[in-house]
Amino acid sequence: MKPTKIIFDTDPGVDDAMALLFIEAAPALDLVGITTVFGNGGVETTTRNALYLKHRFGLAAPVAKGADRPLSGLEVADAGHVHGENGLGGVVIPPAIPGELDPRPAHRFIIDTVRAHPGEITLLAVGRMTNLALALREDPEIASLVERVVIMGGAFGFAGHSGNVTPVAEANIAGDPQAADEIFGAAWEVVVIGLDVTQETLMTTAYLAALRDEGGEAGRFIWEISRFYEAFYRDATGAEGVFGHDFSAAAYIVAPQLFALRGGPIRVVTEGIAEGQTIQQSELRKFAPNAWSGRPSHRIATAVDAERSLALFRDTIVARYGRG
Amino acid sequence: MKPTKIIFDTDPGVDDAMALLFIEAAPALDLVGITTVFGNGGVETTTRNALYLKHRFGLAAPVAKGADRPLSGLEVADAGHVHGENGLGGVVIPPAIPGELDPRPAHRFIIDTVRAHPGEITLLAVGRMTNLALALREDPEIASLVERVVIMGGAFGFAGHSGNVTPVAEANIAGDPQAADEIFGAAWEVVVIGLDVTQETLMTTAYLAALRDEGGEAGRFIWEISRFYEAFYRDATGAEGVFGHDFSAAAYIVAPQLFALRGGPIRVVTEGIAEGQTIQQSELRKFAPNAWSGRPSHRIATAVDAERSLALFRDTIVARYGRG
Repeated sequence: MKPTKIIFDTDPGVDDAMALLFIEAAPALDLVGITTVFGNGGVETTTRNALYLKHRFGLAAPVAKGADRPLSGLEVADAGHVHGENGLGGVVIPPAIPGELDPRPAHRFIIDTVRAHPGEITLLAVGRMTNLALALREDPEIASLVERVVIMGGAFGFAGHSGNVTPVAEANIAGDPQAADEIFGAAWEVVVIGLDVTQETLMTTAYLAALRDEGGEAGRFIWEISRFYEAFYRDATGAEGVFGHDFSAAAYIVAPQLFALRGGPIRVVTEGIAEGQTIQQSELRKFAPNAWSGRPSHRIATAVDAERSLALFRDTIVARYGRG
Repeated sequence: MKPTKIIFDTDPGVDDAMALLFIEAAPALDLVGITTVFGNGGVETTTRNALYLKHRFGLAAPVAKGADRPLSGLEVADAGHVHGENGLGGVVIPPAIPGELDPRPAHRFIIDTVRAHPGEITLLAVGRMTNLALALREDPEIASLVERVVIMGGAFGFAGHSGNVTPVAEANIAGDPQAADEIFGAAWEVVVIGLDVTQETLMTTAYLAALRDEGGEAGRFIWEISRFYEAFYRDATGAEGVFGHDFSAAAYIVAPQLFALRGGPIRVVTEGIAEGQTIQQSELRKFAPNAWSGRPSHRIATAVDAERSLALFRDTIVARYGRG
């Protein structure tokens, strides 16, 4: 089978970096572009980090810089308290990084690449959805030209998993609720990998230590960047390890059989105390006409075989980078 | 142990009637008042039904008529499509029912009764929370004078249970979101029995048929009033039976050990597409200061031993009304 062409829209970010290494390592995936967005840090930081990862791990895919703020135009706080000041858990990054950015803004890069490979591109978005929304606004036809869209975002309450920035809002969606609502309003195929499954996918300290010992350069790097992130989660949630948020969305593309999905239209709350909440209307229940009526159906992940998903990550990293 | 004194705030309502018969039959409960509210029908209908139930089943507790609309003052549609035009699944109710209403409005009845029995009254509210909010507004001190408040309302997403009037809103809360938010803002003990557990508590057609055959007058009545309700749920959700919504809140008072609870402050969304949603901030996770900060902690039910809860209902009804 031909590998799936991926544009990885990302804000590295600790778990973004893990996902990026997985995508590069997975034989089933073909990374054709990296687009950056504000979120885990400002876009200057996340772009610098993307270039650093490209250089350090010899990635061929170009990097295009994207949005520095949500569609609303308002400036936002970054998530330095989660990912560290430099977005990669404080590991030392050289001041000057060889390599150049793609000259296009991220949303234009997305449009051009989708149009160059009609029906072949999977947009894998693991940050704020701003770049995808800008691409869709500028060229709505791309909705019919992508293979599909897979996002890490949202929280739907399964297994008691609610939001991580408010009791109902997940950070990627809360960071640009309007953009996410536009993504869910378009008639492309969207699969949503939310906290419901990513918080089930716990990379324990022991798991990360084994990766450090067996995963070569990449394994050691993942260990280093996850020290700060792990301390944050221990304090915030009591978890003994880190959640494989962004990786899980990539894992879905490689191994969809590990995930249970539920279909139905999705809206994002854009006001009030529930702002940033993603709400799917299940297709299994009837409601009177409402804000979900007439919207396209998309699928959300409701459960994951976390053990096998974590094994997939470990095996993929070790096979590509191990013994190095 | 002395029976727990209950004021039952209700909008009968098929499942309200079931709960009322259970409260009357349960030796652990002492029904000291019935207060009515709009909801499953207009307040004239629900009050007429309460008087009918009092007369037909010889209940000693007085009935006081309550609010006919939410705190917002806006008129609302009733739930005739769920409970039937007359609120009791279309069973024939005589035009004139003997017996008189308490002269006081429901919220005044609540205040007077709580003050007459300080520390002894449990407010069991299974309709819109308007009467409780009016009582609290008129006499905030009752918050420290009730034993506690147990409500049927809300949906918190456990086990995939979301709203029943919108994907996130449950009818009792959605019918007066402001009232519910005020209830959750007060420093009394509130236990919330929501769809997360009531939709796990399915009275199947076979269960109801057995109750009809063994539960005497009450069993036969429950069977009759639930025919229309059952058809509604079959169509709306595919369920083969009816949910024991209101009964479950009464069951919690009798047998709290059948329920798992989670603590944390609760807010109700009062605007936008999520209006009527109840959101608890779990005490198990830290968040930045937000709309939940400084609010009192209340407990929500997250799971129930439905089999034992249903057995409790059946056994209580059969013991009191059976072989009749």
